[in-house]
Amino acid sequence: MTYCLAIAVDEGLVFASDSRTHAGVDQVSTYSKMFAYARPGERSLVVLSAGNLATTQAVVRRLNRDWQTGAEPSLANTPTLEDAAEYLGEVSVELQRRSVEQSGQQNGLAVEATFLIGGQIQGQAPGIYMVYPQGNFITASPLHPFLQIGETKYGKPILDRIVSEQLPLERAATCALISIDSTMRSNLSVGPPVELLTYRRDSLDPGHYRAFQPDDPYFADLRDAWRDGLQQLFDQLAAPPLDPAAPTTS
Amino acid sequence: MTYCLAIAVDEGLVFASDSRTHAGVDQVSTYSKMFAYARPGERSLVVLSAGNLATTQAVVRRLNRDWQTGAEPSLANTPTLEDAAEYLGEVSVELQRRSVEQSGQQNGLAVEATFLIGGQIQGQAPGIYMVYPQGNFITASPLHPFLQIGETKYGKPILDRIVSEQLPLERAATCALISIDSTMRSNLSVGPPVELLTYRRDSLDPGHYRAFQPDDPYFADLRDAWRDGLQQLFDQLAAPPLDPAAPTTS
Repeated sequence: MTYCLAIAVDEGLVFASDSRTHAGVDQVSTYSKMFAYARPGERSLVVLSAGNLATTQAVVRRLNRDWQTGAEPSLANTPTLEDAAEYLGEVSVELQRRSVEQSGQQNGLAVEATFLIGGQIQGQAPGIYMVYPQGNFITASPLHPFLQIGETKYGKPILDRIVSEQLPLERAATCALISIDSTMRSNLSVGPPVELLTYRRDSLDPGHYRAFQPDDPYFADLRDAWRDGLQQLFDQLAAPPLDPAAPTTS
Repeated sequence: MTYCLAIAVDEGLVFASDSRTHAGVDQVSTYSKMFAYARPGERSLVVLSAGNLATTQAVVRRLNRDWQTGAEPSLANTPTLEDAAEYLGEVSVELQRRSVEQSGQQNGLAVEATFLIGGQIQGQAPGIYMVYPQGNFITASPLHPFLQIGETKYGKPILDRIVSEQLPLERAATCALISIDSTMRSNLSVGPPVELLTYRRDSLDPGHYRAFQPDDPYFADLRDAWRDGLQQLFDQLAAPPLDPAAPTTS
């Protein structure tokens, strides 16, 4: 499984991802799911991937080839972020279809992949988009300024509680790490290293990045502080008042 | 959707459930999903239900009829908790099959239901069980002393962090409410009133119960205290150290 998320706040964008992949529980590996495409001063884009690893790797190979050869379209020349999301969706659908055709199975071959793509292009606003396996896409809303792919539910409550467009960029980055920590805590199929990239609005630079290994001092301290703080917070809560139950409800 | 959970600690058992049901987003209703069967001094059992509402209601009608008529087997006379879980599974499978046969559709008719059943029978240890739509069942483990059905993921991280067999009964009850609050916060298909029943080991009584409406003073204070405490805890966390990203990873 996988967990990736993107957060869009007024100050900029946050991208975060785990690095665990598995084909069954007996084939667990570590792959980066974060891919950055930047032309400083002109555009800065980040892609996060979830789903079938063969598909996501094939898609990223194509994105990289098109980026390097300057093909039209490519992430180097799409006029808008929406165009970049549409291009990514077209590549994804084409390569999924090819895998199914090669296999000869028309059904039952799970090659689906989902992507997040976000960033900023000169003269335009920053944005984040989720590209579905079918190639269509959505963006985030001001009331719900984040997008998630993969194993999304365990890490959603803290985002729902904390994230708003007004949240400072570095706080949004911290919240992304807590969201991933909660997910790793509850689901072994999501694991480190955790990659984090922050992009400051209008910088048009590659942003700031770090891959947190399990023994990363900051990440270890963060996880401990959150765990201990939750325990202390919980210990302060009042117990519920209860009445004797009726003999039976039947 | 639905969220129900049962926790088994050394001091006893906790059962909690939301009350929202829906057949599509335009048909949302409120039904209790908690059903208690007690013969004080001899046995005290609780059933929680999730899944197709027609199936769960039909199953509970059968459980109640068998309970009242003293049929063999029924929740009034199963020798052990495992027998009670097996009986519940047999009733569930029979009534699901009947619905499919009545409909004439052999596939595609979603009548599945999942149940939690727990409690204590005189002379035996308390326990909790999850009964799958296929009629088979599992119990909780000492390392994982809780079971969930329905929309389980949003509320799992706090259980993973807090719940152990040594947790006092009233703290386990508090944790169950926090787990349901987190789920309601992230998923509109889970909603109040929240029902909570605690059973103290070896009491063999119906336990203690409360249905918390949204405006219940205790539940409102609990949700506010947790929300505000999480915000304060989060605000104290240090922001991650980040380095300038490489120009591009492609």
